[in-house]
Amino acid sequence: MQIDLNSDLGESFGKYKIGLDEEVLKQVTSANIACGFHAGDPTVMKNTVALALQNQTAIGAHPGFHDLQGFGRRKIEMAPAEIEALVQYQVGALAAFVPGHRLHHVKAHGALYNLAAKDRQVADAVVAGIKAADEQTVVYGLANSELIKSAKAAGMKFAQEAFADRNYEADGSLVSRSKENAIITDPAIAAKRVVKMIQDQAITAVNGDVLPTAIDSICVHGDNQAAISLVKRIREALTKEGISITSQL
Amino acid sequence: MQIDLNSDLGESFGKYKIGLDEEVLKQVTSANIACGFHAGDPTVMKNTVALALQNQTAIGAHPGFHDLQGFGRRKIEMAPAEIEALVQYQVGALAAFVPGHRLHHVKAHGALYNLAAKDRQVADAVVAGIKAADEQTVVYGLANSELIKSAKAAGMKFAQEAFADRNYEADGSLVSRSKENAIITDPAIAAKRVVKMIQDQAITAVNGDVLPTAIDSICVHGDNQAAISLVKRIREALTKEGISITSQL
Amino acid sequence: MQIDLNSDLGESFGKYKIGLDEEVLKQVTSANIACGFHAGDPTVMKNTVALALQNQTAIGAHPGFHDLQGFGRRKIEMAPAEIEALVQYQVGALAAFVPGHRLHHVKAHGALYNLAAKDRQVADAVVAGIKAADEQTVVYGLANSELIKSAKAAGMKFAQEAFADRNYEADGSLVSRSKENAIITDPAIAAKRVVKMIQDQAITAVNGDVLPTAIDSICVHGDNQAAISLVKRIREALTKEGISITSQL
Amino acid sequence: MQIDLNSDLGESFGKYKIGLDEEVLKQVTSANIACGFHAGDPTVMKNTVALALQNQTAIGAHPGFHDLQGFGRRKIEMAPAEIEALVQYQVGALAAFVPGHRLHHVKAHGALYNLAAKDRQVADAVVAGIKAADEQTVVYGLANSELIKSAKAAGMKFAQEAFADRNYEADGSLVSRSKENAIITDPAIAAKRVVKMIQDQAITAVNGDVLPTAIDSICVHGDNQAAISLVKRIREALTKEGISITSQL
Repeated sequence: MQIDLNSDLGESFGKYKIGLDEEVLKQVTSANIACGFHAGDPTVMKNTVALALQNQTAIGAHPGFHDLQGFGRRKIEMAPAEIEALVQYQVGALAAFVPGHRLHHVKAHGALYNLAAKDRQVADAVVAGIKAADEQTVVYGLANSELIKSAKAAGMKFAQEAFADRNYEADGSLVSRSKENAIITDPAIAAKRVVKMIQDQAITAVNGDVLPTAIDSICVHGDNQAAISLVKRIREALTKEGISITSQL
Repeated sequence: MQIDLNSDLGESFGKYKIGLDEEVLKQVTSANIACGFHAGDPTVMKNTVALALQNQTAIGAHPGFHDLQGFGRRKIEMAPAEIEALVQYQVGALAAFVPGHRLHHVKAHGALYNLAAKDRQVADAVVAGIKAADEQTVVYGLANSELIKSAKAAGMKFAQEAFADRNYEADGSLVSRSKENAIITDPAIAAKRVVKMIQDQAITAVNGDVLPTAIDSICVHGDNQAAISLVKRIREALTKEGISITSQL
Repeated sequence: MQIDLNSDLGESFGKYKIGLDEEVLKQVTSANIACGFHAGDPTVMKNTVALALQNQTAIGAHPGFHDLQGFGRRKIEMAPAEIEALVQYQVGALAAFVPGHRLHHVKAHGALYNLAAKDRQVADAVVAGIKAADEQTVVYGLANSELIKSAKAAGMKFAQEAFADRNYEADGSLVSRSKENAIITDPAIAAKRVVKMIQDQAITAVNGDVLPTAIDSICVHGDNQAAISLVKRIREALTKEGISITSQL
Repeated sequence: MQIDLNSDLGESFGKYKIGLDEEVLKQVTSANIACGFHAGDPTVMKNTVALALQNQTAIGAHPGFHDLQGFGRRKIEMAPAEIEALVQYQVGALAAFVPGHRLHHVKAHGALYNLAAKDRQVADAVVAGIKAADEQTVVYGLANSELIKSAKAAGMKFAQEAFADRNYEADGSLVSRSKENAIITDPAIAAKRVVKMIQDQAITAVNGDVLPTAIDSICVHGDNQAAISLVKRIREALTKEGISITSQL
């Protein structure tokens, strides 16, 4: 039994710093590196790739809407062809910094991730952009989402991810951040839950429903010390249960 | 005897249109496609690459400073490491749209081109960025410039370019656009001059000095009908003299 | 009987040119000048204000979403407080270029205009931003829209505008550009229709419904020669009917 | 005897946070608020103005080059007319958020500040932009700089500022940050030095030269706790010496 741990990285921009990249890179197996549209800039990207290589963390692109002010969390109404080009551009830009120019994976960010999870047309555009830029890479997406279906249909490799600290609705979507029970704040519960999801290959929704799901990767965060502690706790719990932590999907 | 004709393309942005790309692509052998920093956007890049492929024009990246308002023509004071990353990013972004993800060439734009022609530190940064993104591509630069020296030193392929419609100083630099005799406006003179430069493998400066120069490519423009006419005239003059027009450097 | 003619202006950006500003300024009485977010830049704004002053055209701000690539036509999901600040900023920026720093009017652009026409929360945010920046200015909005209701409720002066070349649905909204009958292309019909709307103080929808509407201003365009011709034709028709053309609302 | 203490504020952007604004606002008498070009965004500006009003801190605009990635610290080669419009725009944008739309002062940021200190043409452009946007405001500038001369020549009010933690060359310019002795790191020395500058109305350069200078304001920082401590220490030293701290120039 095995699992990948992925985290968003390289979200600083110019003088602006976000994220404890050096620390979280020691804990995760896959890095989703921002590509300069919602966060990151060429220099940050270059440095983050170098840091990931030092830590032998698998490198992925993390494309988002072109909206630094909104950190890629605001939906921008774009035509599918525009979204495809948007993704293709960002994947290529990050690949330029990686030896061999091949990426382990691509994971959409923020509002683009959420849209692609629910809207098949957006999902298809995202997958088309990824495929055009790197046919061999792995498409990361919310487990059971439209994006995963789209990746399958396009013949792309894919990885289904689950969130360590987020609750799920009965339809497999994340409980909206605007609701009280969106986030699991107790690290002990989160760690236990991660182990259970992997062992059961299922997600338990807030209403108690059990959604059978092949989970390949767990998304964790590195924004602050509490987040880092949570990742360490999850690693301990996984190791204790004999679940190996690896980006070899 | 042979020569390449190159032109800047894909300089539109969103609703804003610049350049008669469809027409000039029928005349030139190499396209320098803007990469979204001084001009171009992901959609424009995708469409311009498709158009170049249709015309069997060799595709190159045209990275510039991140300054849409200034169209990349304003010098921005950046550290060499920043310039390297800036170039690497843009080359990768354009490569994403090209089948096989390899570019025929890379030519810096505007203020970055001019700086890299004169300042070896900037030249080295530009070449390092290009090499990191694509080791096999050809570095285009002003003939006899620091950029060409830098490309040689880095073991990169390079192409020396001359301008059909610009006068030269005795040191091989372009006469500044702020001077009256910067531009050659008579198409007949420009066409004749291009042929002579190639046959003599030399550039004649405004003071009469002859600068021996191996010229690989001629830079032409496609901004308006007069520019297109000039390119056609140059092609006719070249063909008449038995000089073949090709991007096979 | 009187009417104002308004047009969007100052939509160029850096080297990118859009719109026949010099020509359309001779025909209209109110100029909606882009504020640098969806179009325009500080230099373009300064020059456009100078041109409007020369033509004694009333000057208004034309704020939009921060999206140059999408020309402000793509909806960006923003919180009301963010929209308020977005509008307030742009109104102040344009006012800086106007003698006395007071604007004749403010008209939202593109996707922001459309959203504010239908969504009262967005409308309230737009009006709050305008009011905070200039309490005395006139809020321009689609006749019968939520924006007009919001301006009324806020105690702001307002002007209801109708479109010379657009068809209307029975609910007073514009027929979507994605539909075939969105645009009235025959100048004779458009001119006649404008006169009728003003004389009847009513808009006739595509289904024949008559919507009584106090119309203060007609929106016209200056993108190309056909647009300029249409404006001239409308002016002739108005003059012939004794309707005076003025920005004095 | 009196002095103003000014600090740069509102330098956050979207999700990115910089500066301990709430704390430094309790210590200073004048706030230089970023205008969205090198830092800040409309929402940050609105909130920062509100915070300054709560603390009865005098509000000024802090315009810079349009370069978020470089935080306005990279010189961008712009024509004087472009710089004038750049400044005018930003001053107006900030004024929109201030009750009455009048600003206490305007202080250029970073590379624009440094350029305007040394280059009279740039200084004149900055002053022209400020004057066009607000004729009554006070131009803040490096003591003895070209900017101060330009403000005088334009008939604008001005305030000469000195830096608490920076050493000076014999010509009155700041010792470059690239030199070892650029920054005064010992808070005791910095505080003592500030008092001496004000009492002597003179700056002592690194070579011992004494430059007679009427100092109106001291620039302090709020980036971190050490900076806040330094400001507190300076306030104590000033108060002890009976120097009143006020923005009433």
